[in-house]
Formats: sequence, structure tokens, C-alpha cells
Amino acid sequence: MIQVFGHMAPDTDATGSAIVWAWYLNEVKGQSAAAKLLGTPNTEAAFVLNRWGFDQPEIITDVAAGDDVVIVDTNNPAELPASINDANILEIIDHHMLVGGIKTKGPINITVRPLACTATIMADLMGDDLAKAPDAIKGVMLSCIISDTLEFRSPTTTDVDVARAKALAAELGVDIAEYAAEMFAAKSDVSAFSDAELLRMDSKKYEVGGKAFRVSVLETTTPAIVLDRKASLMDSMTTVASEDGVDQVLLFVVDILNEESTLLVSNDLVKTVAEKSFGATVTGDTVVLPGVVSRKKQIIPQLAV
Amino acid sequence: MIQVFGHMAPDTDATGSAIVWAWYLNEVKGQSAAAKLLGTPNTEAAFVLNRWGFDQPEIITDVAAGDDVVIVDTNNPAELPASINDANILEIIDHHMLVGGIKTKGPINITVRPLACTATIMADLMGDDLAKAPDAIKGVMLSCIISDTLEFRSPTTTDVDVARAKALAAELGVDIAEYAAEMFAAKSDVSAFSDAELLRMDSKKYEVGGKAFRVSVLETTTPAIVLDRKASLMDSMTTVASEDGVDQVLLFVVDILNEESTLLVSNDLVKTVAEKSFGATVTGDTVVLPGVVSRKKQIIPQLAV
Repeated sequence: MIQVFGHMAPDTDATGSAIVWAWYLNEVKGQSAAAKLLGTPNTEAAFVLNRWGFDQPEIITDVAAGDDVVIVDTNNPAELPASINDANILEIIDHHMLVGGIKTKGPINITVRPLACTATIMADLMGDDLAKAPDAIKGVMLSCIISDTLEFRSPTTTDVDVARAKALAAELGVDIAEYAAEMFAAKSDVSAFSDAELLRMDSKKYEVGGKAFRVSVLETTTPAIVLDRKASLMDSMTTVASEDGVDQVLLFVVDILNEESTLLVSNDLVKTVAEKSFGATVTGDTVVLPGVVSRKKQIIPQLAV
Repeated sequence: MIQVFGHMAPDTDATGSAIVWAWYLNEVKGQSAAAKLLGTPNTEAAFVLNRWGFDQPEIITDVAAGDDVVIVDTNNPAELPASINDANILEIIDHHMLVGGIKTKGPINITVRPLACTATIMADLMGDDLAKAPDAIKGVMLSCIISDTLEFRSPTTTDVDVARAKALAAELGVDIAEYAAEMFAAKSDVSAFSDAELLRMDSKKYEVGGKAFRVSVLETTTPAIVLDRKASLMDSMTTVASEDGVDQVLLFVVDILNEESTLLVSNDLVKTVAEKSFGATVTGDTVVLPGVVSRKKQIIPQLAV
């Protein structure tokens, strides 16, 4: 049984593209595969699973030596099970920068493309076989693209992603704007999560200038829900940073509809980051960064301290 | 100008696939690219360049920060310029196991496939555009496949490689058996090289059991030419190992036509390696390993100490 999984803190693409590729391996390639999760899916991913009739895949905490695995939507060992390099990695499909920690025991299929969404890459890899996919699989692929492109707002969006999403939506009879609004409402419904959970929900560790950061984003259509909690979120950052072995948590609250981020400025280090990375002028405990919606394209590459 | 290059100690695939992809970027993708070499091509690669009318690409020793580069036929920083991670890596096309040291500044195109030859992967990536390639480019691609598969003898050979080589040969009017014999004769003509050069000519560093090895192969149709020099080759191993920071050089003289290797057993460490890795019974200073022709498939995965 091949285990197909994306990164920890699974979002829609990590969850959905694992389901898509497991379907492809089972139904087209005649192999035996199952999608797995490395944590509880976020509220948008849970909505997507429910919308297209999928049970939540099993959550696993590690892999055993020799397990057959396919990695999707990441190539970062820090976002994968601790024993990942002991597993028999069969394939990697991803759209992130290469961070260089995964090793394979022989030559395997690795496909990384600078597209917005892993599911888009999978559609290309499937070629004509995509036509064999049931509506539920196509619906999940569409959801992945809408999620990762923020309905085509993110600067990571490519023509390839847009064309694929529009073709899938047309085939499925889905109105992209209406469906995206439902997805983003689900993603914005974070009231059930603790401050620490919010800080870790969509977060990547990144080191720059000798400092280790947890770079967290919360994509929402209702930033006020998060920003109303800013005092306790900032309190919680110290504990989370200490527990996770980083110097600082940076929380960017991404306003999807207005295409801007609010960075919580909890101390002088974050103030310096805001000024040096984004040329921002910081006067209070938050700063708005107009146009910044993509961690991959607009936050990580700019980060300076 | 995009610099396209393969690994150090360039063989036919490292040389040829760089030329092929530079052609594709220039003539199909409308970019500005040039093939480069990270060392003097081996005698087979030099023969192939001459046969298809190419000048030897420029040899470079390093890359500068921000240089646009495409890496082919390796993903191993140890086989690449020291400053490779400072360059702007645009793409990687390879067929080796992922060793995990290359980092990219953003998401790029990475295509690794478990095929025998990088040029085969390129043919697949080009799709219909391959038809635009002039005979010289197709001839180089055919040469790469014949070289890396040892004319389909290597266990790394896949149906995809064979089909592509046969199609190219038919189109070019090349008799594969005759042409392969010419290529292998060129590869076997190693009289001009010093012992140290022979030991480093087609060599990869590999660590196992706490020992660092330089695992060298010499593919030849006339093993006697190399084996006649075994005494001085074994003498030279100590110096090469010391200079290159490894514990031991392992030299496998691959008899292409008889599909076997002769390992030079220079000391007890190599004797142990021969016994533990290949179940060989060693009585003298060489041991024949029947059927062993591929470092990638039959030597590295077996290596034990």
C-alpha cells in the first residue's frame, strides 16, 4: 500500500492533491494507494472534503522504514514525518523551492513546477487520463487551485492554473466566484482554534540573518475575527516560539478580498523585520502591507532582519 | 545568458544533454543559452562532439552569484561548482537519486525520472518540439542513450530509452551496433591519461559504514589495456584518496561486451568490500564480478564494508 501525503498542517492542496494522486495510482496506474494526512486538515480543507463526498483521510504521525510513500506539495523534511528518509520514497510532486533535505535510495520520479498549485501539476502529468477522473476528483482539483491561488488573486497564479481551473469548473458546472466564497468562508471560520493553533495552522519555519522564524499566514475574508484576538495571539507567540525552537513567530493576517496583509508587531524584532523586509513604517502593534498575500512570492523572498 | 551544464568529469550524457537543452532553450524557447563543461570531456564524449560537428563547449570552473544556470545529469553539489547554491538555478533535469544539497531560491522546474539517460527525459519533455531538432542534436541524443545504457546492456536501461534510441537511429540512418562500437572504442582509448586521471575520470564519492569511497568505473571494450596498468593504478590510489579526502578508491573496470567488472583489490579494506558487497571470493589483487556493469544499479546500492 502506497501512502500519499502532503505537508504537516494540511491545507486544501496538501489534502486534496494527496487524494487526487492516490486516485490516479489506484484507478489509472493499477497500484494500491491511500491518501494520508500529517495532521488535522484546516477548516477549508475539511469543507472541501465534505463538499465532494470524501471521508477525512487517516492521520499518521510517522512512517516506518521501507514504507512506500509519495510526497506531494512539499519537499521539506521539516514538514514531513521524522523518519521520511528511511521510507521508500517513490515520487515527489511539488511546487515549492527545493530546500534540500530529502534523499532517495535510487532515481525516482520528481516533478517540481513553478505553478500555483500541486493539483495543476498533477493534471498536466495525467494528460488524457484526467478524463477518467470522476467529478469528485475534478472537484477536489478545482478546490486546490482556487485555494492556492486565492481565486487567482495570488501572484503565484499562472495561466496554466487559471486555464485548468476554468476548464474543470465549466465541466463540473461550478460557479468559481460562488464556490470560492464558500471555501474562503470555511477557511475564515477559525473561532474554534486556540491562539497557539492559529499560529501554527499555516506556518513554515525559515531562517534569515541568523534568526529562526515561524512564518505564519492566516488567509481570511474576515480579518477582524483574527485581529480582535491580537493581544492574546501576541502573548501566545512567546510560548509557541520557545516550544518550536524559533526566535520569533511572524503572523500575517491575509485579507483575501482586499489583497493585503496585517502583520502583528509584537516587539522590536518584528518591527525591524517589517521595516527591512517591506519598507513599512510601523507606529503601533500592527502594520498593513498592501498587496502582500503570498508567503512564497512576497514574504519569504523579502524577509530581512 | 543561461549556462547549461552537467556534472564534473563530463561523460557523453553530461556533455551531450547540456548541448541538447541549450539548443532547446535557444531555438524553441527563444531564450539565450550556452552549454558549458565542468571539466575535460572523456574520450567518448569528445568523439561524439566531433562526430556530430560540435565544438567542445567552454570549460568553466565556477559560477558567480546570480548567474542563470540549468543543471543536467546530476543533482549532487559535490559534482557541481562550489558556488552552485549562489547561482540562480532555473531548472534541473536528472536521472540520479536525490542526494539533497541543492537549494533553490524559489519554485523552479525540476524533472527527475528513473530512466537510463538524461537525454531521454529531455526528448519526453520536448514532445512535438523534438521534430524541430537538427540531425546533429538528434545524433547527440542517440549517443547519450547508447553511452548511458552501454548499448542497452546496462540494467538501468528502460523500454523508454530503447524506443527513443531506435526511433532516433532509424530517422538518422545510423546503425546502432556499428556506431556503439565506434563510441566504445573511443571510450576505451585511455592510453593518454595518467593513473590519477583514470581513477577520477568517471567517479562518484559515496559514504557507507563510516568510510568514504571514491567509486570509479572505467567502461571499456578492452579491459586488458587498463588491467595491464593495475600495479601503478593501485599505487596511485593512496595519493588520490588522500588528495580527495576519501578513505579508499574503488576502481571497477567494466567490460562492456562481456558484461562483467574487474575490481582492483589493493588492500584488505577493498577485499572486505568485495566480499560483503558482492559475495565475492577474493584470492588475488583483482576479482571479477560477473554481470556487474552499472554503478548506479549494481554497485552503489550493494556497497557494504
